Amino acid sequence: MTQADLVIRDCAELLTCRGPLPKRKDALRDCGSIENGWIASLQGRIVFVGSEPEFRNEVVAGDEIDWIDGRNLIALPGFVDSHTHLPFAGDRVREFGLRLQGWTYTQLAEQGMGIRTTVAATRAVSRDELAGLCLKRLDRMLLHGATTVEAKSGYGLNFDDEIKQLEVLAEVNRLHPIDVVPTFMGAHDIPAEYRDRTDAYLDFLIDRLMPAVQVRRLADFFDVFCERGVFSLEETRRLVEAAQRAGFGIKIHSDEFTALGATELAAEVGAVSAEHLIQITPDGIRALAGSPTVALLLPGVPFFLMLDKRPPARDLIDAGAALALGSDFNPGSSMVSSMLFVLQLGVFTLRLTVEEAINACTANAACAVGRQAEIGSLEPGKKMDVILCEVPSRAHLVYELGPNPVRHVVKNGRLVVRDGRRV
Amino acid sequence: MTQADLVIRDCAELLTCRGPLPKRKDALRDCGSIENGWIASLQGRIVFVGSEPEFRNEVVAGDEIDWIDGRNLIALPGFVDSHTHLPFAGDRVREFGLRLQGWTYTQLAEQGMGIRTTVAATRAVSRDELAGLCLKRLDRMLLHGATTVEAKSGYGLNFDDEIKQLEVLAEVNRLHPIDVVPTFMGAHDIPAEYRDRTDAYLDFLIDRLMPAVQVRRLADFFDVFCERGVFSLEETRRLVEAAQRAGFGIKIHSDEFTALGATELAAEVGAVSAEHLIQITPDGIRALAGSPTVALLLPGVPFFLMLDKRPPARDLIDAGAALALGSDFNPGSSMVSSMLFVLQLGVFTLRLTVEEAINACTANAACAVGRQAEIGSLEPGKKMDVILCEVPSRAHLVYELGPNPVRHVVKNGRLVVRDGRRV
Repeated sequence: MTQADLVIRDCAELLTCRGPLPKRKDALRDCGSIENGWIASLQGRIVFVGSEPEFRNEVVAGDEIDWIDGRNLIALPGFVDSHTHLPFAGDRVREFGLRLQGWTYTQLAEQGMGIRTTVAATRAVSRDELAGLCLKRLDRMLLHGATTVEAKSGYGLNFDDEIKQLEVLAEVNRLHPIDVVPTFMGAHDIPAEYRDRTDAYLDFLIDRLMPAVQVRRLADFFDVFCERGVFSLEETRRLVEAAQRAGFGIKIHSDEFTALGATELAAEVGAVSAEHLIQITPDGIRALAGSPTVALLLPGVPFFLMLDKRPPARDLIDAGAALALGSDFNPGSSMVSSMLFVLQLGVFTLRLTVEEAINACTANAACAVGRQAEIGSLEPGKKMDVILCEVPSRAHLVYELGPNPVRHVVKNGRLVVRDGRRV
Repeated sequence: MTQADLVIRDCAELLTCRGPLPKRKDALRDCGSIENGWIASLQGRIVFVGSEPEFRNEVVAGDEIDWIDGRNLIALPGFVDSHTHLPFAGDRVREFGLRLQGWTYTQLAEQGMGIRTTVAATRAVSRDELAGLCLKRLDRMLLHGATTVEAKSGYGLNFDDEIKQLEVLAEVNRLHPIDVVPTFMGAHDIPAEYRDRTDAYLDFLIDRLMPAVQVRRLADFFDVFCERGVFSLEETRRLVEAAQRAGFGIKIHSDEFTALGATELAAEVGAVSAEHLIQITPDGIRALAGSPTVALLLPGVPFFLMLDKRPPARDLIDAGAALALGSDFNPGSSMVSSMLFVLQLGVFTLRLTVEEAINACTANAACAVGRQAEIGSLEPGKKMDVILCEVPSRAHLVYELGPNPVRHVVKNGRLVVRDGRRV
């Protein structure tokens, strides 16, 4: 018999999202649906997933147990948002207005807007202010179903402010129920101080910042924006190889606006994810199909930037790549803080099926942050990160647009959202 | 001095949406923004809109007055959802799944799915069940900022069930704070009982149902689905002329999937609105530009049906047409119950500016239900229908995707949503 201290009983539908990891073509179609499912945990870890009779046979429900009623709710793993730029200050509403008048993202960057606006604002705020902004955003993300959030630095672009961003992430990870996965992205842009001296900026990142981040244990991953006007493929390779030597896992912003070969590089070096892929080439698709590197698509970006082109989700799946979805929450190209909306965009704008989109926001998204052993599916041994949604079936998560169906969120075996409110 | 029984004080931004009605090109750009705005009402009617000093000069705030604190909130007129199919039973999730596999709306209709599924489900439920469904949906709409909702029959398609739908609308209008504007849409489809006998169905609608609806005062408007495979232009004209003789105002579903000339007809007969317009022709645009008929666009439909084509919002505005946005809330082609999401789709998928989209969901949407004298803008004499949103500026209503920013809703001078919850 198994001990438990928390039980979610009698969920109308329980989606385990179990399967081989990362999930590819056929496995992506399977959410592991259990009707009238029960799930139990002890000290934050799942100890049981199954039916009521199995529960009665296997689990000892002591007096101190907490019960959550799952009737009329569907339960699924907490969403893993595997790509965000969480720690920033300011907003980019002015730029947003100009884009509505027809300016392109690249044109705005050329006028000194874009990322640089946010770099100035983020450098200007204190640690406490930045932490306060992050906590407020994490609350919103939690209310919309995210229980793990990757977060990149990259609006500091100097020693103190990159470290500040990463230390703030460590702090909010301690303070907030959401697990924050920190990524060092000093290679998000070339700061004004290093204009026309990209090599010197690379030296700075490699010789000073990477060791400083590592010695403070401030980041699990290194990420770089490989894009025309930012970092070339050769510069990206140099950065990534140095980051690997320094001990970082690798994520790469690749093929967002221009295909430069970074997706192939991501697969070659064993990055956990190649991210964006709007302009991915057939070679890029083949490279991901043959590697464990996850194709991490960010449908908020084409929606927010009003692009006609979308990443070729179906081609990637058909080729055998492992697909994940993330929000790319950031002030310039995707102010999307709801993973539920990302799931919906995955269906309506990338034409995923509901099941593919759910797996892409859970099991495969966990692979895109290297935490597939801990999160992303509901099975014994993993974290008790569960969301309960008030919809009649999983398809209704996508079919009903507008209202937020997330009623309760359990994180590490603790109820942190009850009836749509933070507890 | 003016008496007041409710005051909303010190709104960070107050959008009046005042202007000529319906608003066209230049007027659509003006939301009538007042910084630190105050608004007061007496017995549900607005008596004051302006600054604090003006308020102190003009308004007597007695002891019994209710105060709402508008600090850090923006205030705007409650949204008018001018096109919904509210009173239906069942859902169409199965069909939704087939569409994700590539089936078209027309193919589904040919297989007996589509509207007919919902007709069967709606005929099968009792009045009480149908009212319960409507009330639940109206709550969701209210929480996302709608204070007036047009609602069409058209899932009965026989005497008893069309009357049932309309009587349910009258009942929920009494029970719910939202004002429901009822539209008789017996001409939503040709029921199976009349297959290949369209003329006989038209006779039935004209000779039996129209007088029955009129004598019971159950609908303000008549609407008809002019579309290939449904009602031809000639049939639409016959129905519309009969409806006008019977005393109905006119709305027409036109140019949704096929341009048949119904938009031109709508302008010719003085309909309040021509609705959908995805396939509108240059002649249709010219017709609307020269008439008071509102171009009512429903951006949920191309999003939900994953169509590449969108109604030409910019061409309509440039030509001088009056533009409104609605949800088309219905189970087959737009399960969108949030007017806030409609506003966002107006910007992101139709490329309206934020101001154009706000006016299209308020002032011009009021014209599309013939209630512009009562609602759609904040000015003395109109209903005190106000929503208060927790965002730093009006642009943030669109810029921040995911969370619902609607904190408070005042309907007819009464607080009906407080801190995101129904009161």
